[in-house]
Order: sequence, then structure tokens, then C-alpha cells
Amino acid sequence: MSVSGFGVHTAMWAMEWNREAAEFAIPEAVKHDIDFLEITMLDPEGVDTAHTRGLLERHEVDCVASLGLPLDRLPTNDPEGALAFLKMAIDTSDAIGAKAMSGVLYGGIGQRTGTAPTEAEIDATARVVRDAAAYAKTRGMLYGLEAVNRYENHILNTADQAVKLCEKVGADNLFVHLDTYHMNIEEKGLANGILRAREHLKYIHLSASDRGTPGRDTIQWDEIFGALAAIGFKGGMAMESFITVPPQIASALSVWRQVAPAREEVLNDGLGFLRMKASQYGLINSAEEKKTA
Amino acid sequence: MSVSGFGVHTAMWAMEWNREAAEFAIPEAVKHDIDFLEITMLDPEGVDTAHTRGLLERHEVDCVASLGLPLDRLPTNDPEGALAFLKMAIDTSDAIGAKAMSGVLYGGIGQRTGTAPTEAEIDATARVVRDAAAYAKTRGMLYGLEAVNRYENHILNTADQAVKLCEKVGADNLFVHLDTYHMNIEEKGLANGILRAREHLKYIHLSASDRGTPGRDTIQWDEIFGALAAIGFKGGMAMESFITVPPQIASALSVWRQVAPAREEVLNDGLGFLRMKASQYGLINSAEEKKTA
Amino acid sequence: MSVSGFGVHTAMWAMEWNREAAEFAIPEAVKHDIDFLEITMLDPEGVDTAHTRGLLERHEVDCVASLGLPLDRLPTNDPEGALAFLKMAIDTSDAIGAKAMSGVLYGGIGQRTGTAPTEAEIDATARVVRDAAAYAKTRGMLYGLEAVNRYENHILNTADQAVKLCEKVGADNLFVHLDTYHMNIEEKGLANGILRAREHLKYIHLSASDRGTPGRDTIQWDEIFGALAAIGFKGGMAMESFITVPPQIASALSVWRQVAPAREEVLNDGLGFLRMKASQYGLINSAEEKKTA
Amino acid sequence: MSVSGFGVHTAMWAMEWNREAAEFAIPEAVKHDIDFLEITMLDPEGVDTAHTRGLLERHEVDCVASLGLPLDRLPTNDPEGALAFLKMAIDTSDAIGAKAMSGVLYGGIGQRTGTAPTEAEIDATARVVRDAAAYAKTRGMLYGLEAVNRYENHILNTADQAVKLCEKVGADNLFVHLDTYHMNIEEKGLANGILRAREHLKYIHLSASDRGTPGRDTIQWDEIFGALAAIGFKGGMAMESFITVPPQIASALSVWRQVAPAREEVLNDGLGFLRMKASQYGLINSAEEKKTA
Repeated sequence: MSVSGFGVHTAMWAMEWNREAAEFAIPEAVKHDIDFLEITMLDPEGVDTAHTRGLLERHEVDCVASLGLPLDRLPTNDPEGALAFLKMAIDTSDAIGAKAMSGVLYGGIGQRTGTAPTEAEIDATARVVRDAAAYAKTRGMLYGLEAVNRYENHILNTADQAVKLCEKVGADNLFVHLDTYHMNIEEKGLANGILRAREHLKYIHLSASDRGTPGRDTIQWDEIFGALAAIGFKGGMAMESFITVPPQIASALSVWRQVAPAREEVLNDGLGFLRMKASQYGLINSAEEKKTA
Repeated sequence: MSVSGFGVHTAMWAMEWNREAAEFAIPEAVKHDIDFLEITMLDPEGVDTAHTRGLLERHEVDCVASLGLPLDRLPTNDPEGALAFLKMAIDTSDAIGAKAMSGVLYGGIGQRTGTAPTEAEIDATARVVRDAAAYAKTRGMLYGLEAVNRYENHILNTADQAVKLCEKVGADNLFVHLDTYHMNIEEKGLANGILRAREHLKYIHLSASDRGTPGRDTIQWDEIFGALAAIGFKGGMAMESFITVPPQIASALSVWRQVAPAREEVLNDGLGFLRMKASQYGLINSAEEKKTA
Repeated sequence: MSVSGFGVHTAMWAMEWNREAAEFAIPEAVKHDIDFLEITMLDPEGVDTAHTRGLLERHEVDCVASLGLPLDRLPTNDPEGALAFLKMAIDTSDAIGAKAMSGVLYGGIGQRTGTAPTEAEIDATARVVRDAAAYAKTRGMLYGLEAVNRYENHILNTADQAVKLCEKVGADNLFVHLDTYHMNIEEKGLANGILRAREHLKYIHLSASDRGTPGRDTIQWDEIFGALAAIGFKGGMAMESFITVPPQIASALSVWRQVAPAREEVLNDGLGFLRMKASQYGLINSAEEKKTA
Repeated sequence: MSVSGFGVHTAMWAMEWNREAAEFAIPEAVKHDIDFLEITMLDPEGVDTAHTRGLLERHEVDCVASLGLPLDRLPTNDPEGALAFLKMAIDTSDAIGAKAMSGVLYGGIGQRTGTAPTEAEIDATARVVRDAAAYAKTRGMLYGLEAVNRYENHILNTADQAVKLCEKVGADNLFVHLDTYHMNIEEKGLANGILRAREHLKYIHLSASDRGTPGRDTIQWDEIFGALAAIGFKGGMAMESFITVPPQIASALSVWRQVAPAREEVLNDGLGFLRMKASQYGLINSAEEKKTA
């Protein structure tokens, strides 16, 4: 029950995960020598799980499932609805063979009350997370909590908040999921976020400061990889870019323009750059090391 | 008709600008040896202009006024209402002695349609900006357009977009206003934003990546100041931090927690750090240079 | 037997450590609220130990002694002479009350054969270090090995080399001493040096990339402090600047110009900046935290 | 009479430039889609100029010649010998078709007196540079002055010193040549070096902080490329790494260990990284832009 190595988020190829998306994305993804694919499910019920699982197995690539809750089925406004949705999503994730489900699994993108989270909101959130994580455990799956920036959600913005929720719930299959795009807005030093989460961090989104091409952005990547090396990080590193955002979901992500000139730039420059930096800090073997291995 | 040197945004001391705020903020601000104060007006009509002007004159400090439009009086939904609001704000700014008015003067914080800005929206925006800038000119005032991040507004997120609107309108008292907090999210390299705006850039917010203390954050400040030096920047540099955000306006700014442990930290560490970096790149004289001058 | 907190290297005030230097430097140093003073001894035999010890005690400040060997008394060309010099220096350091002696204690500044260090050189070096460290232990002192850049010495340039020598000798009072100025030239990523040395690192020189004012230089300080935080560093952090270099010793350090406009700049801007960064990453308490403590 | 685009320094393949080196290096270099090759001549008299020129023409690649003076034929100890050597080198460079000659053309690597440069040394240097530049002009060649770090030479360490010598001589074919490896040690901010030299800068070495693989090092490359973009840099950018250093010349360069695991890493990761950054800041077209051009 673990995720490791380098992966890519499916937003690179498709935002809505259906048969057509799976047939396009999976063969493309494996060309880039990845260890796993992160499959975002906007509509878990609509996924043809046998079809996705078959393609993943045929291409011999692992997967992680990710999602956020619908804004009318949150732990804070409909805890039973939230839990039912999460159980359905866990079943779907299990059915496609995911080793872990992660993301805004404690709430929704766009969840904001206009004020700081209250203790009652945190408590309600913790109860749903506890039950959902327990259910995930029966499927042998890890359950991750991704801190996102202040504009996207008001419950978990920082590593500190994610760790506290993780520890409040206390489930052994629960983990913290960080994202460099969000950390760049929320943390007082990039290493600080990673160090705060060190005991619980099992997954990280490597995402450019503008959601475009990592390396062609404002993030201090040396500090990210230096800190990951420092904590002996062994989890999954998934490159995420919102290069493919259909108009109907641009709003939730506030993507109003093309974040990079082309998908190829993100895959070539971005993935190449991240691999160079990850190998510089000893997190993966370099191309030279692989040759001699 | 120009703004220059180092300033501080009034959010350091007060968000609502009334007599009490002015009496607290202005004497405090001048203790920090600033050239100007940026006064944010959430409610321009409520400002006691003679009182503020008197305090500014007594403390011998310049000012810049800043604001955003109400969401029901935008160029895109109520162009006449927007223009009337802007003229009233220009009169107020003039009455307190401001040399420039700047901010989201082309729209509102929170203005989003859920899709990319349309040509019709840009045209409507340009018409109101043209008329408002012309009105400001009759008062001898500069008029600035601040690009803000994708979550706060969908019209102007990047230096490129701000420059294009500036050039489309073509008024000689119009300028581009950048903000390091927003650039850190939107630009493909911090220097790129400044270089794109170089012909029009007259004002910059020096704001930490989390709106807290500059220097205790994730921004690569050397790239900011190196680029400002490169373009021979002579405009105003205003430190901005949302250390003082009353609950009723936290929502518009998405500030859910204390962004720094104390106002003193922002003023001491933050302002000290920014001055050190600005003098390192020759934008201001260092403490040592001042002594020998 | 440990060194911790913030210190300053005496090059800030004097390069030759005599009575006059001690009377000037010690009272000046303690004005900056430091935990220890690093006293460099170009000529240990010339130090009036009782005088220095008295001043240190009166001003209640700890000390660390530092030095390099004379080029004609190196482990590689005169091992007995080297050991005799080191024992004398240990006695001197002990006499002034130093808790540790550190620096190029394995060779000299300027030691270069023109080729890579040979196994025989490393062996000869290890033998002298073993005996000197054992002698230091009888005095209750730690013994540090500072990696310096390729131009100053050819034996230990990287953290990796220092760790290997440390482990080859295997004495429990031996430690690795890094220096940001040298790391900036020698390490493949600043965090990498610190992470490589993590088990043995007890002392670090915080030195600007040009030996001038830390913060007004090219070093990525966030990566330094993030890595120190990551390894739970508890050792001594000494700011070092060669602001005061008399012509007769400029050559060994290759200092041909004033490295900063004034000592005050290094002490005010440099020490202030380093403290801000160290507190940002939780290595020391911030000014605000001290107030409330 | 100009150099532009991306080049690579021949130390990537060979340090001594003879027929064998030329036959290996030139075909290898052009595989990397470069605009020019920088050919370092340790012994200009030993170069088979017709052979090199023929290979360069056959492979359609431009060249820049580079060198330093022998330590016994410096402007400061043998001005006539220095000038004679430089004229011979100019003739050789012209004969291989070089558009420019650059490097430590004002002195030697290892030139140090142990004290700061005197006015008499600067004057003697200026006289030789003036005569050599005039001679280069008769061949239609540019003549460059490369600032190197304090350990390698005591005459020109900073952009400021190089600009002053350039302006003192005043020849129109004279230019300043910077190197990121040296700037990382000598400048108070990387942008500052480039901005100081802006009027005279026509050539830059893109060299890692440890002479290894650019991008796997400690340099803040965004600041370098942002500043080059800011000044509208149109000169040559040459990647330099001392991956191939035979023992007999390691001493002058103080290279005691392998600076990268393999030449391929420098060429693949290093050149790829530099091109990505150069295109991020608009100095060259990106791979995507080239496709659509």
C-alpha cells in the first residue's frame, strides 16, 4: 500500500475521464516513462472502471485517483452525502486499481464561507475523513488530504493545517498531500511546508507557479527538492499542469488563458526539468546513472 | 505628477479609512521614514478628506489612493455607474492630496464570469478607463491599472494584459501597477512581468507571497529588484501586507488566518529586508550611503 | 562540549589577535547579542590567553578558536611539525576557554600540489587529525574540519570529502564544519552539502558569496536554512566576512578590494538578514518570539 | 563583426587544440545545434589553422577563439612579449575564421602579486590591450576582456573593473565578457554584474557554479537570464564546463575532481536547461516556437 516514483496528472491530456480520454491519455502517458498516472475523476460514477483498469494493466502503469467533493455534498453542509460520495469514489478508485485516492477529499474546490474555518467545521470534516479513510482501508487504499490555496478552499491551506487534521483523525492509511503551486502561495518558505508535513507526507504535486510548465515559472525548485531529499521522501511525485481545461470547468480552477504554449512543452521541458532536479538531489536516478545501472 | 520612493499600504494599520484610522496610521507610518502612504479607500465617500489631508501635510508625507470598484458597478455590468464611482473616487483622492490613484480601477476584486474575458468586456473596460483617466488628468492625477491574480479578477492577471489595456486606451496619465504577490502566481518568471511592463510601469506593490512579511516568504526578491534596476524604475514601491483584516472584508481577500505573527514583524523585518534589497540593486541609497551623503 | 547559537568571526574587527584586537572586538561583538565569538588565530603563540579569557568572561560570551596550518608544517610535508603546531594551538584555545577548535585543521590555506589529493596525502592527513583530535579530547574540546574551496586547498573541498575524512578517523569529538561561501562554489546544490554532512555537521560559517554582507550576495539562503532546519541542526552558526583584511594577509584570502562599504553594513544588514532567515526556518527565535518568551 | 546565439566551449571535448581534438570536437559540437564553437587555444602556435578552418566550414559553424597569456609574458612584467603573443594569437584566430577573440586577454590565469592591482599595473595593462585591440581591428575582429575570480587573477574580477578598463582604452572593437561561474563569486547580485556591463557586454560564459552541469548547481539562473533579457543582450552565450581537464592543466583551473559524472550529462541536461531558461526569458526561440516558425 504505497505510491512512489514519478507520475503525471491526467489534466495533461483530458479533464473528463471517459473511455475516449483513457484511450488517448494512457498510451501517451507511458511514452514518458512514468511510474504512475494520477487520474482525476470529476464524475466518478461515469468512469468505465473495467475499461480503465484494462488499459492500465495492458500498459503496465500504476494509478492514483484524485478528486474533490461536490459543493453541495461537503462534510460541513451534508456529511452523510459527503461520506456516501466518498465511498462511491473509493469503490470506483479500487475498481480501476488505484493504490491511493487523494486530493480535496475533505471538502470541495470552491468551498468558502467567507470567514476562517470554525472548530465545528473542522470537527465535521474530521468525522467524515475518519469514516472515509476507514472505508478506504477496507479496500487496501491510502487516503490523502491535499492542502490547497486560500482561494480554492478555506479548510486546509497549509501543511500545518493538513498535518493537524491528519493527526486529529489518526488513521494509519491517511497521509498529507502537498502541491508546489499551492505551497508557493501559502507557506513561509517552501522547505517549511515539507518539513512541517514530514511525518505524514506521501504525495506531492509538482506544479508550476502558474499551472503551466515547471521550470518556466517562479518556484524555487532547489528548495523543494532539497527538502524532499532531507526528509527521505519516498512517496509519489506527480507533475500537474492545467494545460487541458475545457471551458465548463475553467471556473473552478480559475484558468482563463492557455497556461503553456503547448502540451509538448510541459511534457518535454517540464518533465525533463523536474527529473533533472529530482536526480540532482538524489530522489531518482539520473539518466546517466540509469545507463550504468 | 509622479510617485517615487518607498511607501507603505495602509492595510498595515487599518482597512477602513476613517478619522480614527488616519490618526493612528499616519503618525505610525512616518516613523518608518517613508516617502508616501498608500491609502486604500473601501468607501471613498466616507473619507473625511480635509482631516486626512491635514494629517498628511502636518506629517509631511505624500499619498497615493487605491481602490477597486463595487461588484455591482463594473465597466462590464454598469459602465455609467462605474464611471460615476470612479469620478467620485478621483475627487476624493484629489481632495486628500493624492498624486495618483491606482488599483483595480478597471473592475472589481471578485469580478469573474467563470470564463476568459471577452473582447466585449475588454472594450467596455477600456471605455470606462479612458473616461476615468481623462477625468483624473483634469485633477493632475496619474491613473494606475493593477494586474491581480486569476482568483481575484478575470480581466487583468498579467503584465502583458495590463500593458495591452494601457496601450489600447492610450492616455498619457495611465500607467501599469504590478504587485509581487500576484506576479508570483501569474508570470512566467518574475523579471518577465517587469520587463513586459517596462514602458508603462510606474508603481509596484512589494507584497510577500502569502501577504505576510516580505523576506519571510517564497518570492525570489533578487529577480524583482534586479529587473526594476534594469528598467531604470523610478516609480513608487509600496510594501503591502494584509496583517490587519477585519472579518467583514477577509472574504474578498481570502485571508483566513493571521498572515504574520505581529505588525512589528512586517514593519521591522519586512521593510528592513526590502530596503536592503532595493539598495543592493541601486534603487535607493543604503543606510551607509545616506550617512555619508 | 558543544557550540550553539549565533556567533561572529573576529575578522569583522581584527585579523591579528592581540591585546588591542581583543579589547576592541570583544566589547563590540557582544553589542550584537551573540552567543559566541569565533577567534581566528593567525599566530596562536602570540595570543595573551589570560587577557582574552578575562575579557570573554567579563562580557559573558563563549568562544570558538579557528586556524589553518602554516604551509611548511602540513600533515603532508611535516606531520610531526603539524601535530606539534596543532597541540600548541589546542593548548592556546583551551587557555582562552574555547569549547571547540575548527577551521583548516587538516592542512593549510594555500595547500595545493597542482593535482588531486593522493591516497597517501589523505592517509597522512588522517593520521595527524586523529592524533590532534585525541589531544583536543583530553582538553574537553571538539575538533572541526572545514571544507574550503578548490583554490584555497586541494584536500577537502566538499562536504562529501570532509565526511569521509571524519569517518576515516572516527573520533567522537571530530565534526564537519561547512561554510556557505565555499559551498556556493563546490556543492551541486546548497542543500546537498548540508544533507551529506548531516550526521557530522556541528558548525557552519554563514559567509556571503563575495565574503561581504550576507543577503547582499548571490547565495540562495532559503536553501541553506531550509536544509539546516531539516537536519535539526543545533550547532554554531558564525557570520564571517573579510571586511578587515590587512594587506599582509590579503594574499592568502585573495581579497583585493573592500568586500563591503563598511563594517556597520555587514553587522546591521548582514546579521539582521541572517537572523531573520534563521528564525523563518525555526533555527532561532524571532525578535517577536523573544519578546513574548 | 559580431557573435550571437548559443555556443559551447571546447573544454567539453578537449583542452589542447590539435588536429585530433578538432576532428573529434567539431563534428560532436554541431550535433547539438549550436551557432558557434569557442575554441580555447592553450598553445596558439601549435594550431593547424587551415585544418580547423576547413572543419568549421565543412560543418557550417562559427567560432570564437579564447585564451590567457603565459605568466611570463604579461602586460605587467613583459609588455612587449605580451603584445607579441597577442598579435600571434590574433593572427591564429583570424586564420581559423574567428569573429572574436576573448578571455583573459589582458593578463594570465594565475596572475597575482598578493596585493590589489596598482594604478601602474592597470596602466600597463591598458596600453597592451589598446595595441592588441587595434591589431585585432585590422583583422576585423572583436576583442574581449573576461573578468575572472579573485583566485585566478587580481586585475579584473568584477564587471565594474572590466567596464572601467574597457572605457579607459576606448576602442570600438573592445567588449566585456562575463562568466556566470566568476560572477557567482564576485558580484553583489548576479543581475548587478550584467547591468553594470550593459553597454559593453557582448559575450557571456554560461558556466555552472562548480564548473560542472549548468542547472545542477547553485546559480540563480533566472536572475542571469532576466538581466540579459532586460539589457536586450544580443551577444554570444557559450556553455563552459571543465569536464575534460588533463592532469597537466588541472592546476591552473584548480580542478581536482570530475566536475560532472559524464560529458553527456553536461551536454544533455546542461545545454537543455540553459536553452529552456534562455527561451523562457525570450533570448532564443523555444523548441515549440521553432516548430511553428
